[in-house]
Amino acid sequence: MYDLLSDLKIVEVSSFVASPTAGLYCAQMGADVVRIDHKAGGLDYDRYMMTREGRSLSWENLNRAKKSVALDLNSGEGRDLAAELVRKTGLLITNLPLGSFLPHDKLAEQCPELVSVRIMGWHDGRQAMDFTVNAASGYPLMTGPQEWDQDAAPPVNQVLPAWDFITGAYCAFALLAGLRHRDRTGRGLEMRVPLGDVAIGTMANAGAMAEMLYRGGDRERLGNAIWGAFGRDFLSKDGKRFMVAALTPKQWKATVAAFGLGTGVSALEAELGVDFAASDHHRFVNRQRLFDLFQQAAARLDYADLAARLAAAGATFERYRTMYEAARDPVLVTDNPLFGPSPANPSGFAYPATRSFANLPSQPAGDPQPAPYLGEHSEEVLAERLGLSSGEIARLIDRGIVATSDKDTK
Amino acid sequence: MYDLLSDLKIVEVSSFVASPTAGLYCAQMGADVVRIDHKAGGLDYDRYMMTREGRSLSWENLNRAKKSVALDLNSGEGRDLAAELVRKTGLLITNLPLGSFLPHDKLAEQCPELVSVRIMGWHDGRQAMDFTVNAASGYPLMTGPQEWDQDAAPPVNQVLPAWDFITGAYCAFALLAGLRHRDRTGRGLEMRVPLGDVAIGTMANAGAMAEMLYRGGDRERLGNAIWGAFGRDFLSKDGKRFMVAALTPKQWKATVAAFGLGTGVSALEAELGVDFAASDHHRFVNRQRLFDLFQQAAARLDYADLAARLAAAGATFERYRTMYEAARDPVLVTDNPLFGPSPANPSGFAYPATRSFANLPSQPAGDPQPAPYLGEHSEEVLAERLGLSSGEIARLIDRGIVATSDKDTK
Repeated sequence: MYDLLSDLKIVEVSSFVASPTAGLYCAQMGADVVRIDHKAGGLDYDRYMMTREGRSLSWENLNRAKKSVALDLNSGEGRDLAAELVRKTGLLITNLPLGSFLPHDKLAEQCPELVSVRIMGWHDGRQAMDFTVNAASGYPLMTGPQEWDQDAAPPVNQVLPAWDFITGAYCAFALLAGLRHRDRTGRGLEMRVPLGDVAIGTMANAGAMAEMLYRGGDRERLGNAIWGAFGRDFLSKDGKRFMVAALTPKQWKATVAAFGLGTGVSALEAELGVDFAASDHHRFVNRQRLFDLFQQAAARLDYADLAARLAAAGATFERYRTMYEAARDPVLVTDNPLFGPSPANPSGFAYPATRSFANLPSQPAGDPQPAPYLGEHSEEVLAERLGLSSGEIARLIDRGIVATSDKDTK
Repeated sequence: MYDLLSDLKIVEVSSFVASPTAGLYCAQMGADVVRIDHKAGGLDYDRYMMTREGRSLSWENLNRAKKSVALDLNSGEGRDLAAELVRKTGLLITNLPLGSFLPHDKLAEQCPELVSVRIMGWHDGRQAMDFTVNAASGYPLMTGPQEWDQDAAPPVNQVLPAWDFITGAYCAFALLAGLRHRDRTGRGLEMRVPLGDVAIGTMANAGAMAEMLYRGGDRERLGNAIWGAFGRDFLSKDGKRFMVAALTPKQWKATVAAFGLGTGVSALEAELGVDFAASDHHRFVNRQRLFDLFQQAAARLDYADLAARLAAAGATFERYRTMYEAARDPVLVTDNPLFGPSPANPSGFAYPATRSFANLPSQPAGDPQPAPYLGEHSEEVLAERLGLSSGEIARLIDRGIVATSDKDTK
């Protein structure tokens, strides 16, 4: 764990993916992130995959390196404790709805320096989640095989909850931006980040909204091809599928050389009167002819040969892996410094654990930390942040307002 | 434009998507972001969609609110100017390869306070881009229709370059984290963020890596269904497709009520001996039976009726739109405060432009800013940041080391 944010204390009142991700990134940079949950676990506490003992592998990966405080959030007293923790901490990440028990304005009355980041569904307050904003974004109706009929093609959902993860990273950024503003001005502020805005806004930032408006219609189906460049999946003689991308002249030349297609490509250039090395444009417009050439060449070689040639030439390519393959891949996981040894996960199941995506040549990365048991840090945090005595905490526990570690209850 | 980062000056030496996105998010929060490019435009300057006049709609959306300095980066003198701008600025976002002309260690010799974020391909230095890291991540072989044969299913690439956008947001966060560390310690540092690590690390953070290792194999195909919960696309009587998601008891009850399926669901619960409201688990395990029920109900109503009922019940749902529809949608775009009036885009084409994804109730959002023309701010930035005189700048322009606005050259 790096120490870049080791001076920060953050409260996270979160569920599902985007909000916990924002806290995770901060925690992996050294921030002291306390996740507050209802004592029975938040809405995401049992998210699949569950182990046979009833531990969520999703939860324990999205909440690594955090502390857990468990309160009876159905009681006024539990909610008051949560609000007091937020006020005493001054930094909040949450995806609670605007109308819930932790409204920024109310908290800010007694804590004007509060910086909060609130993930919403749609900007207008309608509920949303990754899969529903994705439906609205236009991407699912552009995804899937090229040969599917443009007008009748069904939507294809992304398996990756991409909007959640973009939103999570963006909210970690927004929190630090708001904090920087507070450091400079002394003033807190609320920042609202609608998941739906991240989706439609990313579509716009990518240039796709402008593109559709400029066209006055939808883009043609591309299947697995890269829009506006040379790239697609190919199939080797031994049935391995791999992706090849050539977006620069250098990548293009390397790819042509690796496929042994110098002559074939030159012949096609002569026939069409174009210079493929000169720009993406010709490579994209004539992609079908090129794909046919490249697929014929791919079909003549086993993948190991192709990969060796592509690597030697300096091309950009990658073999498709199933996720189970990826999870055990030496280069991707086992020998990748992104991953560290398994910490003592709540599930008891041991597997490589991620560090921060950013690696710092100047700092030791340290070992990844485990997610907490639910309530594991209730006593510690209530004592340290709220100054409650052990007697006061014991009474809150007796009365069911505060819960302690659920280590032995599953 | 918000002013949260208005005290920051950043240099971006970028191409494609991830790196420009990191700069974009900072610029939309008020940072003074100078993008330095080769005078003929970087590798991404002609990325599709291109207008008839030769302006990239991709570039002009990913580089909003930035300044542009154009230098002859093939010359030693141009590279020295770029390096000097980085040193004088002290914050760098780049996706230049490690071995290129802006290595952190070299720059830091004269600028120990430099904080740089460098986006890489794979952690081991191999080239990569969104589509190739995606191939390795396992997601493409899990995407696509449920009925496809698990072993023979082709990969389905994401059209959204999700890894690029997650990486971009993460790098904006990492930059501010590094800056906070510098503010505290006085020391600069280099942060390397491999696109490949973001992909494989996100797969792990999502719990999917642990899941595959725990299963000892790959997940079954799910098509458009949500893993571990109730959710899928349905088709209305009038042929509209929409996504429905019910991850909480409240969402589930709302969805059942909206579909008018109280009786049907109760009958199925009695038959199976389960309580669907009690947990995701039963809804997921019995999803096919439920999907059949819900699809029969959907087929009896037009979408407008269904949508009204779903909204009234408080369910989470969304109609699939094509991207052209999404781009013109009043709720998503035209009436959405995320978007502001079209600034004077380099393309001359007018369309709604994004603001920051975060909206701040306490600050006016201001109007979105346009991307610069290439080289538009060369003279201004060289004068202000390097203190060059107008005579010195004029000579650099005459000698082709510095280029000015390309406004009239396309």
